[in-house]
Amino acid sequence: MRFTFSILAIGLQIILIILFGVFVRYNTEKHLSSHNSTHEDDKFITLYPLFQDVHVMIFVGFGFLMTFLKRYGFSSVGINLLIAAFGLQWGTLMQGLWHLHDGKIEIGITSMINADFSTATVLISFGAVLGKTSPVQMLIMAVLEIFIFACNEHLVNFLNATDIGASMIIHAFGAYFGLAVSAVLYRSGLKKGHDNEGSVYHSDLFAMIGTLFLWMFWPSFNSAIANPGAEQQMAIINTYFSLAACVLTAYAFSSLVEHKGKFDMVHIQNATLAGGVAVGTCADMNIGPFGAMIIGFIAGIISTLGFKFLMPILASKLRIQDTCGVHNLHGLPGILGGIAGIVATALGAKPGYTPLLQGAALAATFGISVVGGVITGFILKLPFWGQPPDQSCYDDTIYWEGNIVTLYLDMPELGHFYQDQQMSI
Amino acid sequence: MRFTFSILAIGLQIILIILFGVFVRYNTEKHLSSHNSTHEDDKFITLYPLFQDVHVMIFVGFGFLMTFLKRYGFSSVGINLLIAAFGLQWGTLMQGLWHLHDGKIEIGITSMINADFSTATVLISFGAVLGKTSPVQMLIMAVLEIFIFACNEHLVNFLNATDIGASMIIHAFGAYFGLAVSAVLYRSGLKKGHDNEGSVYHSDLFAMIGTLFLWMFWPSFNSAIANPGAEQQMAIINTYFSLAACVLTAYAFSSLVEHKGKFDMVHIQNATLAGGVAVGTCADMNIGPFGAMIIGFIAGIISTLGFKFLMPILASKLRIQDTCGVHNLHGLPGILGGIAGIVATALGAKPGYTPLLQGAALAATFGISVVGGVITGFILKLPFWGQPPDQSCYDDTIYWEGNIVTLYLDMPELGHFYQDQQMSI
Amino acid sequence: MRFTFSILAIGLQIILIILFGVFVRYNTEKHLSSHNSTHEDDKFITLYPLFQDVHVMIFVGFGFLMTFLKRYGFSSVGINLLIAAFGLQWGTLMQGLWHLHDGKIEIGITSMINADFSTATVLISFGAVLGKTSPVQMLIMAVLEIFIFACNEHLVNFLNATDIGASMIIHAFGAYFGLAVSAVLYRSGLKKGHDNEGSVYHSDLFAMIGTLFLWMFWPSFNSAIANPGAEQQMAIINTYFSLAACVLTAYAFSSLVEHKGKFDMVHIQNATLAGGVAVGTCADMNIGPFGAMIIGFIAGIISTLGFKFLMPILASKLRIQDTCGVHNLHGLPGILGGIAGIVATALGAKPGYTPLLQGAALAATFGISVVGGVITGFILKLPFWGQPPDQSCYDDTIYWEGNIVTLYLDMPELGHFYQDQQMSI
Repeated sequence: MRFTFSILAIGLQIILIILFGVFVRYNTEKHLSSHNSTHEDDKFITLYPLFQDVHVMIFVGFGFLMTFLKRYGFSSVGINLLIAAFGLQWGTLMQGLWHLHDGKIEIGITSMINADFSTATVLISFGAVLGKTSPVQMLIMAVLEIFIFACNEHLVNFLNATDIGASMIIHAFGAYFGLAVSAVLYRSGLKKGHDNEGSVYHSDLFAMIGTLFLWMFWPSFNSAIANPGAEQQMAIINTYFSLAACVLTAYAFSSLVEHKGKFDMVHIQNATLAGGVAVGTCADMNIGPFGAMIIGFIAGIISTLGFKFLMPILASKLRIQDTCGVHNLHGLPGILGGIAGIVATALGAKPGYTPLLQGAALAATFGISVVGGVITGFILKLPFWGQPPDQSCYDDTIYWEGNIVTLYLDMPELGHFYQDQQMSI
Repeated sequence: MRFTFSILAIGLQIILIILFGVFVRYNTEKHLSSHNSTHEDDKFITLYPLFQDVHVMIFVGFGFLMTFLKRYGFSSVGINLLIAAFGLQWGTLMQGLWHLHDGKIEIGITSMINADFSTATVLISFGAVLGKTSPVQMLIMAVLEIFIFACNEHLVNFLNATDIGASMIIHAFGAYFGLAVSAVLYRSGLKKGHDNEGSVYHSDLFAMIGTLFLWMFWPSFNSAIANPGAEQQMAIINTYFSLAACVLTAYAFSSLVEHKGKFDMVHIQNATLAGGVAVGTCADMNIGPFGAMIIGFIAGIISTLGFKFLMPILASKLRIQDTCGVHNLHGLPGILGGIAGIVATALGAKPGYTPLLQGAALAATFGISVVGGVITGFILKLPFWGQPPDQSCYDDTIYWEGNIVTLYLDMPELGHFYQDQQMSI
Repeated sequence: MRFTFSILAIGLQIILIILFGVFVRYNTEKHLSSHNSTHEDDKFITLYPLFQDVHVMIFVGFGFLMTFLKRYGFSSVGINLLIAAFGLQWGTLMQGLWHLHDGKIEIGITSMINADFSTATVLISFGAVLGKTSPVQMLIMAVLEIFIFACNEHLVNFLNATDIGASMIIHAFGAYFGLAVSAVLYRSGLKKGHDNEGSVYHSDLFAMIGTLFLWMFWPSFNSAIANPGAEQQMAIINTYFSLAACVLTAYAFSSLVEHKGKFDMVHIQNATLAGGVAVGTCADMNIGPFGAMIIGFIAGIISTLGFKFLMPILASKLRIQDTCGVHNLHGLPGILGGIAGIVATALGAKPGYTPLLQGAALAATFGISVVGGVITGFILKLPFWGQPPDQSCYDDTIYWEGNIVTLYLDMPELGHFYQDQQMSI
């Protein structure tokens, strides 16, 4: 066990370098000698800021969103970085193999954006199994999931379905893949929860860093690979307004379903983002700003209700333990996005696409993600990947050096205690 | 009371969707069928990174800047998100109504930047009443303030005054509006302060996230709607150097006025930003980099001195309780910016503008913000908006679920205590 | 002592304003009257997002990376802001003096990027002496180091050596300069460490904010001043893949060298960035993505091993106390970058450059940084700069107002203690 992770990580990286040496080149190579600015050059530097926004979503957004766990912040942000750094290299290969040029994969701004996208699926799935799996398991999941993701993405393209913001092929795919893995790795020992499976005040604030960077940069995510001009602009505008509407309903329904009309931090951290997920498929369509707002409005509601009512049922009835509630942030809103795409194409919002093939893409994505997740789950269940025992779940000390746990106390006891001791708080 | 917030939020969002359905369209619609890149297309994607910088300032900058309060971080960053998400939709309508095209409001990158700007006024005012108002009150304030802001902005344009970085129409306006609201909502029970009205070590570090993102992206704020070319570039350069100069004087004067030459975190978090506010009005003028630095130099001084000497007087004599000190960060530097604009136009730094009309714009903005704030304050004082009682001020537990308060102890007692217990600290 | 800092800061700022008034103008001035978009205008707004990425690295990246110290977060992020705000003004002058136009320094996007770069050297050196020096000392170090940096940079240009991502002239320079200063300021009293010289759980999470923003935006750092087109794109692509490969080896070797295969947060925060440093010199060369990955692969290894094995030796044998381990993040990877540049130019990856002159540039940079650091160290050792006594090292209370220290407890004692008291944790 002692060296499994190191050997795997080094081995994967060496394989990547060899494959890159054989298959990968810059897409600029063909005009390296030219000093004239080309259309490709303009495109690269124009899209670079959108790429960087997506990059921030992947590393800071997903990474910090998962730091809400009080004793699992290092692993959340750290293993997120590890998976994504591996995944973007692996994704470059897996996606590129479907688009070879003279037998080579060409690297440019679009391939970099797509590579980042492919890591997003794994990071979403990571959220479902967060705290219950080892770094070795996560690397293996990344290898398998990105391969399956790239195949499914190719299938969706082949079906001539559209999914510019990837409601289906990233969000729903990542969520149901992760939930399937989580179902296979079901732990009856965690049925009644775990002491560490909760947040403290500042861990929730760290998570809000993730939420906000995801929220702000989502318009870039949904528009980065859209056609330049009107379509890309609509993708930005629609996402902007969908997210804004979603915030209002997420807050409203959080207050509706919680005790005394209070807000629940879990809803705010997650359901406010559902509008970005749900508007993805039809982001670049002419649905009107108000159409985008309707999608966001519904997404905020179903996401919040999912957290409150569906998540406990999934855990108890379907034995799916979903640490971060990815079903509510990515799964349900992803399906909503797919359905919105069916409706929008039926209404002619994007000429050349049909509701039938959109539906087929949604169904295929759902099926492939579940089957892929189940297979991956069984592979991850093999006994030599260092899966942590129940009592070490959600606990950084198992993977990180040092005295890493800070004291957090619930207030009531504290108040009493320190009053007894006559200390100032 | 139980459902007030939910009903208000849902109701507002439904109204917004209906109004958007009737009045709002993409400004790309007219050339949706064309596949040629247009001047408008270039402008959109060129300004998009600046828009995203402004977006980060609004949601992360303002949101985290206010997390300095030890027990009010959820509300600071959370209600900031709520207000801004509502405000950008409402601002799109309120500003757009003055600029209809065939009876429609057209959405493009400029309208999105302006919508974000309009939320900034409310977020500044929010700083003045932070911890003392309910989410319901804040939504109502946003409705009223953005309407009044849009009218005042239109008046300033009508006067042919210039305010590219909005020293007057956003910063001074937001500050004096908020201070007027705070004066009307004066709480004698908080005269001697409140146990929760302070920071702890890590809450101050969270606030520095807000400070730094505001500081870094301020050049984008001041230049986003400037004329492309030389004026926009000067707006970036001037803001860059004004902010840098401001940091030096903020540190210097913080050390001057504090005990033993130490720095005060409140000054560093806020006064370092005053240079961005103060250079706003003449950011796009030919004032020279050294001119910008002089403005920043002065802004850092008056802001720090405002925190140290003016703020206690405002609270005790004028009964204005200014939680975040927005008077020192936005009010005084905003007026300084307005005056700098008068001087700069008098010196001919921007042909076509006169000091007289600049002065009129400043006076009008001041008057309208105060009157608007007083009226809004009285509306917010109505007894059915769920304003928190004095003892629940600055306390997240009133609006948020769960055990959310972390233990923080002053060091001296702790040292003793744990020495007594023979524990390692 | 009481007023030293304030007088120095105000004095420096006044001198800067005067020098800017005499020497500095916008580079847009020559075409202020023109309303046509020029090539320069396009360049400014195209590079502006890359400038902002670099800006974030300087202020959030470096600033938060150093907040890992449990009681020195205010000073880390605060003095980082102070030095950088001063340094970007001073750097504008020091670098600009080598490139006068009609006796004037012209400010444009390139000069702003370079000004930010020049502050990076000081911030790297700051990492070596973090916690052991006063703000006054740091301002003086900034004055001296940026002057020496600008001279060395000019020498490297004069030698016709290339260093687009500044592996040598920023990273190695800043590291060895800082280490030389630290050696001169050696404190035997800290030989056995210091109670405050460590992290706590949340201070390590704050540091990860710095790590991630540095990691994500490093492609912008290495490409910002590259030639537009293929070279700039290769700089982005190479840095992207070098960093990704580096993450895998940093994790793998951290796990290899630590107890029970765990990860060490220090390695993850720092060594994951070594790939960005090391690929700097040949970032814009045609080394192939796999070439960049090999550089990152090696950088992750030597950086991690440096932290584990070399750093204790430096401290004990060479009496160099390197608080942040800048030798492992910037020093060794910077030299690796310089060597990679020698190899790459020998292989013809950048026509017009020779391995000989690359080697000369590396040697000169190393020599000048060490000599410059030693001289600066002796100047900083003068007894009137307010250097803190040993017991106040790594402690914010010496420079910051208020009760700023939060309670953190090691877990084991805590567990016992609270079990005894029958309290919930």
